[in-house]
Amino acid sequence: MDLEEIDSAIQKMIRQLGAATKQRRQESFNVKEKIGFKDLVTSVDKDNEQFIDRKIKELDPDCQIISEEGFGDDVSRLQGHVWIVDPIDGTMNFVEQQRRYAIMIALYIDGQPTLGYILDVANNQLYHAWHGHGAYVDGQKLQQPADSGLHDSLVTINGGLILSGRGQVRQIAEQARGLRMYGSAGIELTDVITGRLGLYLSWLKPWDLAAGRVIAEELGLVVQNVDGSRPDVLSSNLVLVATSQAAQDIHQLVN
Amino acid sequence: MDLEEIDSAIQKMIRQLGAATKQRRQESFNVKEKIGFKDLVTSVDKDNEQFIDRKIKELDPDCQIISEEGFGDDVSRLQGHVWIVDPIDGTMNFVEQQRRYAIMIALYIDGQPTLGYILDVANNQLYHAWHGHGAYVDGQKLQQPADSGLHDSLVTINGGLILSGRGQVRQIAEQARGLRMYGSAGIELTDVITGRLGLYLSWLKPWDLAAGRVIAEELGLVVQNVDGSRPDVLSSNLVLVATSQAAQDIHQLVN
Repeated sequence: MDLEEIDSAIQKMIRQLGAATKQRRQESFNVKEKIGFKDLVTSVDKDNEQFIDRKIKELDPDCQIISEEGFGDDVSRLQGHVWIVDPIDGTMNFVEQQRRYAIMIALYIDGQPTLGYILDVANNQLYHAWHGHGAYVDGQKLQQPADSGLHDSLVTINGGLILSGRGQVRQIAEQARGLRMYGSAGIELTDVITGRLGLYLSWLKPWDLAAGRVIAEELGLVVQNVDGSRPDVLSSNLVLVATSQAAQDIHQLVN
Repeated sequence: MDLEEIDSAIQKMIRQLGAATKQRRQESFNVKEKIGFKDLVTSVDKDNEQFIDRKIKELDPDCQIISEEGFGDDVSRLQGHVWIVDPIDGTMNFVEQQRRYAIMIALYIDGQPTLGYILDVANNQLYHAWHGHGAYVDGQKLQQPADSGLHDSLVTINGGLILSGRGQVRQIAEQARGLRMYGSAGIELTDVITGRLGLYLSWLKPWDLAAGRVIAEELGLVVQNVDGSRPDVLSSNLVLVATSQAAQDIHQLVN
C-alpha cells in the first residue's frame, strides 16, 4: 500500500472511530486513575488504542507503533515507519466535559515527521497534514498563520508549569495578550495551527506532540525544545510550538 | 408587555444578534485597546450594545440599563427593572479566535436575579433561565449538576489571579483535577452550569456575572464572594460560582 492509500485509510478510520467514541461516552465505561487523581484512563482509551494499532498493522505490516496505553511496540530506534498514537488525548475532558478531546495519529519515516492527524472528536473536525503536500482541516487547505509576536498573541502554557513557576513561564504569560488552557494538547495544538493561539508551551510525551508537529511544521511554525534544540521523537520534551516571532521572543526572555 | 413576552422577545433578539455578530467577524471592523493591550473593544461591541439597549428600552420602557461600553444609564439603585448587558464577552477571543465568546443579558427586578441569557455565539447555543421557571440550553431543561468537591472538579480561575498568586488561588488549583481557562466569563459560566467545571473563580464586573448568576442560582449552584458574602450587583466582586461542595472546600482552604 502506498502512502496515499494509507493516508486515505487513516482519515476514514479516525472519523469512524471518532463517531464511535462520542457514542461510547453516552454508555457506561470504566475510569481509572493512572498516576494520581489528575490523570485518568478509561476502557475507551484502551479499546481505541487496540483498534487503531490493529488497523495500522493491517495497512502497514512492517511498521513499529508507539502508543500511549502500552499496546504498541517497545520502540527504541526510528528507522523505517514508526506510528505514534494517542487514542484519547484529554481523557479528563472526555470524562468530565464530553468535549475538548482528540484522537491523534502520526507517521514518522526514518525519524522524519510525515503524516499527522488530529481529530477534534466533539466537533468532528479533522486537522491533518502530509509533509510537503499541505495541511488541511476537513479537506480545506490551511494557510501559514500570521507571524505574531508574544505581545500580540494568546498563549497556552500547561497548568502544572504555571503553578510550579518553573523557568520564566509566568513572565511569558504576563507578556502575552492572554492565557488559555483547554486541557488537551491536541485541541491546543489545533489552535496554534490555525493562528487562534500564537504559542503553546508544555511538557509533552511523544504521543502528545507527534501529530501536531507534522501539521505545525508543514505550516512553517516552529516546533522546538525551549532551549532551541530539536525535540526527540522518542522522549518527553519541554516543547514550544509557536510562530517564528513568538519563538524568538521566548528565547530572548528565557536565555 | 409581561415577563413572558419580554423573555420570548429577548431570546429571539439575542439569536439574531448572534448570527449578525458572527457575520460581522468576517467583515472589517475597528479594534481598539481599552485599558492596555490585554483588553480590547471593537466597533461590533459598541454596535451590539446600542442595538441591545435600544431593543430593551422598546420592550421595557421604564427600565434602567447597565451596559459595558457605556451606552446605558448611570445606575446607582436597584429598584424596579434593571437590565445588565455584555454586548461581547471575550472580545479578545472574538478578534483572535472567532470562537469562545458570548453575548450576555440579564434582568434584575428590585435587585433579585430574574432573567439570564448567555449566547455562545460561535456554537449558537443559548443558555437561559427565568427565576423559578427553570434553566435551559436551546430549550432543553438543565438539571442541577452533581455536587462534586474541589478534588473531583475541573476549575477555572482567572489567569491574572493565578499569575498574581493572590489569596490561595494556586493552592486551590493544585487541589483540583485540573485548571482550565477559556478567556470568556460567559463560556466559563456555561461550563459550570452544565457540570463541565465544578468551580469558577474570578474578579468579575457586573456584566460578567449578571446573566450567569441567574442561571447558576436557578440550578442550585452557589454564587458568592470568596468571603462568603453575597455579590453586590452594581460593583466588581471576587466571585466564585460553584457546586455547594466545591464552595465549602474553598472556604476551608481560604478561611
